[in-house]
Amino acid sequence: MTQTHDNRWVKAVTLSPPSLGDNIADTDRLAEALKKSLGTRILRMDLDLLRQLPDRLREWNFRATAVLFKDGGGNGILVHLTAPDSTAPLCGLAVDLGTTRVVLRIIDLSTGAHLGESVFDNPQIAIGPDVLARIHHVEKTDGLKQLNRLIVDGINDALRVLCDRCGISRVNIHLISIAGNTAMTHLLIGLNPRWMIREPYIPVVNRPGVIAAVEMGLDVHPTARALVFPNVGSYFGGDLIAGILYCDLDLREDTAILVDVGTNAEVVLGNRNWMMACAGAAGPALEGGVTRMGTTAGPGVIDRIAIDPDSMAFNIHTIDDQPPRGICGSGVIDLAAALFRSGMIDIRGKLLPERCGNRFTLKDGLGYLTIVPAGQSATGHDLGVTQADLDSLVRSKAAMYTILETITASVGIQQRDLETFYVAGTFGAYIDPASAITIGMIPDLPLARYQSLGNSSLGGATRVLENPACFDRVNQIRDVITYMELNVNQDFMNRFSAARFLPHTDTSRFPSVQSPTTR
Amino acid sequence: MTQTHDNRWVKAVTLSPPSLGDNIADTDRLAEALKKSLGTRILRMDLDLLRQLPDRLREWNFRATAVLFKDGGGNGILVHLTAPDSTAPLCGLAVDLGTTRVVLRIIDLSTGAHLGESVFDNPQIAIGPDVLARIHHVEKTDGLKQLNRLIVDGINDALRVLCDRCGISRVNIHLISIAGNTAMTHLLIGLNPRWMIREPYIPVVNRPGVIAAVEMGLDVHPTARALVFPNVGSYFGGDLIAGILYCDLDLREDTAILVDVGTNAEVVLGNRNWMMACAGAAGPALEGGVTRMGTTAGPGVIDRIAIDPDSMAFNIHTIDDQPPRGICGSGVIDLAAALFRSGMIDIRGKLLPERCGNRFTLKDGLGYLTIVPAGQSATGHDLGVTQADLDSLVRSKAAMYTILETITASVGIQQRDLETFYVAGTFGAYIDPASAITIGMIPDLPLARYQSLGNSSLGGATRVLENPACFDRVNQIRDVITYMELNVNQDFMNRFSAARFLPHTDTSRFPSVQSPTTR
Repeated sequence: MTQTHDNRWVKAVTLSPPSLGDNIADTDRLAEALKKSLGTRILRMDLDLLRQLPDRLREWNFRATAVLFKDGGGNGILVHLTAPDSTAPLCGLAVDLGTTRVVLRIIDLSTGAHLGESVFDNPQIAIGPDVLARIHHVEKTDGLKQLNRLIVDGINDALRVLCDRCGISRVNIHLISIAGNTAMTHLLIGLNPRWMIREPYIPVVNRPGVIAAVEMGLDVHPTARALVFPNVGSYFGGDLIAGILYCDLDLREDTAILVDVGTNAEVVLGNRNWMMACAGAAGPALEGGVTRMGTTAGPGVIDRIAIDPDSMAFNIHTIDDQPPRGICGSGVIDLAAALFRSGMIDIRGKLLPERCGNRFTLKDGLGYLTIVPAGQSATGHDLGVTQADLDSLVRSKAAMYTILETITASVGIQQRDLETFYVAGTFGAYIDPASAITIGMIPDLPLARYQSLGNSSLGGATRVLENPACFDRVNQIRDVITYMELNVNQDFMNRFSAARFLPHTDTSRFPSVQSPTTR
Repeated sequence: MTQTHDNRWVKAVTLSPPSLGDNIADTDRLAEALKKSLGTRILRMDLDLLRQLPDRLREWNFRATAVLFKDGGGNGILVHLTAPDSTAPLCGLAVDLGTTRVVLRIIDLSTGAHLGESVFDNPQIAIGPDVLARIHHVEKTDGLKQLNRLIVDGINDALRVLCDRCGISRVNIHLISIAGNTAMTHLLIGLNPRWMIREPYIPVVNRPGVIAAVEMGLDVHPTARALVFPNVGSYFGGDLIAGILYCDLDLREDTAILVDVGTNAEVVLGNRNWMMACAGAAGPALEGGVTRMGTTAGPGVIDRIAIDPDSMAFNIHTIDDQPPRGICGSGVIDLAAALFRSGMIDIRGKLLPERCGNRFTLKDGLGYLTIVPAGQSATGHDLGVTQADLDSLVRSKAAMYTILETITASVGIQQRDLETFYVAGTFGAYIDPASAITIGMIPDLPLARYQSLGNSSLGGATRVLENPACFDRVNQIRDVITYMELNVNQDFMNRFSAARFLPHTDTSRFPSVQSPTTR
């Protein structure tokens, strides 16, 4: 038996034809060869495939191209078999199943080439903007069915367009890999997530494993299989496990940290030997989350702000250089850092009217700072932040820092010893670490140690389709993670209180941040 | 977790309810408990079951009764889950899938009790009486589909009646176990057997494994699973593997032999450490098989004949003591032994007219012996055997003996050292070992060493449903068997020629058989 594509799911096989001295059955002959090439003890195949096997093998002179996958237990599955000289594309679909946005990516399973991507808003937004609202909707008659249909149809619709764009047919898709948070994953598979939001917060499944695509209603090849990333619990989903896979945290000798700020803030600390994880959805201190500020990034949204220290002029950058129409999370962090550096807010994050000049007004009795006057904005209205927005940001940054402090302390690691600090997600893509350090949201490490991963959920889902070795790592990662419940006890609250100042009550932790009072 | 029925597929589980300190997902909590009770590393369950799990577990206070099974790779499968206090019967269906007859047996999976049995003629007989004719039929348009429908419908029809008789519903059947020869198994699963009868005789599959009953069209519980017994090749089927399991040949310290004479003669020799097998369908010497004589056993069929040495009167026994209407295989063997003892045939099996008296006539120039005159038979016709029938019997008995001699010689074992000689099948149930020894069909062992197993194919299929440990043995047996191709070479033909005499040219091998010439 010869084989190509050693590290792909697509394998070319050449079998020795049967003889009186070598008369094992067709299926077993093929399975033996494929088991060897995949390194599994078991290889299963569907009855429909078995039924075609004898004629096909003889028609193809005992040569074939196979698309393999594994099941949840790590056993091999023959997903598809085609003529050795077939030119039909053999493709995989990676899915980043976000609460807000869903991203699809098609890859060529033979070469690993990325053929195309598609992004669309999660259609479940029509039911509720966040996880909680959607889980509550499940209580209604057919609520679960409705949410399930929305996301399945959404994926099928977007996939149809994407396939056309890539010049392939939907039946060319044989493998699927789906990474999402625990709730979104449950809704996609049609599992009831209602017990996830009730103490003790129990999901239906931690390891959904590999599911027939047809069972999930996905409109791809009828024998296609989908790996649904496992979760560690209701608040630590498959998207994070995909992120760990993507940045190879589980292969590192030295300890690194991965922070993913999406709907929740999720943190993993570890290396090849151990991983400690927690998620910032535990307890009232974190309510509102870290990114409940600003609007979603998009054209015209302010993502960068600097304030000239002399003229106090605001230097604003918008996405695609369009007229400003809002401010996104990274913009708010930049703004807060700039306001703090210029002395326009104090260490509690309170606007100082005497430093803000005519940008400061009172709205409904609350302080308000104009960033872009009505005449210059795309909306025709004044763009600004209220004191409440800034208070919320301070709570969020304090929560983020407290989580990081708590998780590192729990394993006795000094933050300054972290050689690599991965930041995942949209937040990671846009955030300026210098600004986040200035307000004390993240530790005062050399900037080079911060690495933005981009969409690591999609990246991890893709790697599983590119390389069978990554498949095995998914369950290994899941099983090695120790999930730390963020126990909101006195210790936690003390840390949180100390972090509710810019950058921190203990300024020695942020030597790079010049206090405005020292200028 | 507590459990009952330790050695059954039905397990009662009591889970510790989830808490903040023990918050694994419902599925994983249940799977952990069931994996422990089944002793498997993996436990899979269908998506439909997953979807119901959270509500059911809470409704049942985290107690449940589970029906488990394993897949072809030995991993656990949760097939069905029911309320801990449910009284719905949890049943299994064992199938002996014979070429001529099919036997169904329903067992209670909780207790192992046998609830009922049903026997029916394989409806594929309408297409062809034997394996070969049916395999040829597959070449016709829709031939495979037609044969597949016949047997699937046949099982479903008989099952409907059997379930009614047992007072259960078809959806109470959750596990199925099917043992049959390789060709019948292929036709039941819908696999094309055409390459089995063409050199080098390749089946589609050696290890069909465990298949969803619904995929096979069987009308039972929609999530039911069926173990289809593996085969060692085109001529050594799952029925034999079931037979080995049934008589515990694979557990024995000492070496024993199992002979199953159905459509073919199949022989297994071995013990817990090794097994050597061969089947009598190899080569022209065995054409016609061993049981191509006489009619199928049934009421009125002669199964025993003795001849009074003094009066030469025939002493006839019929099944159910009905008026005689035919003679079955065991009757023919008894007849031949009696004819030989009374000197009415010679050592070549030729009728001696001078000894047969008025029972002897010529029909179409061939010798003919009347057993029952027309006036005493149920058919109104004379019942008898022709010289051709006797010649055929001699060829058959010689083939049987030669196979036994060849397989024991191949491993250097003396026939007289075989402490146990199992005879399976209908043949085994009716045959009189003393008669078979007299004609030299089987070795001259003490009669107590011969044990009739009855329907060992059904017995083995049943044991898999009764006891999970037997499931694992099925694949172990299959993998330990060395299949010996019956090479019809000069050695074989010499042995065969020497065995074409009653009892043998070497009479020292049959000390218990008195030669009629010595009387």
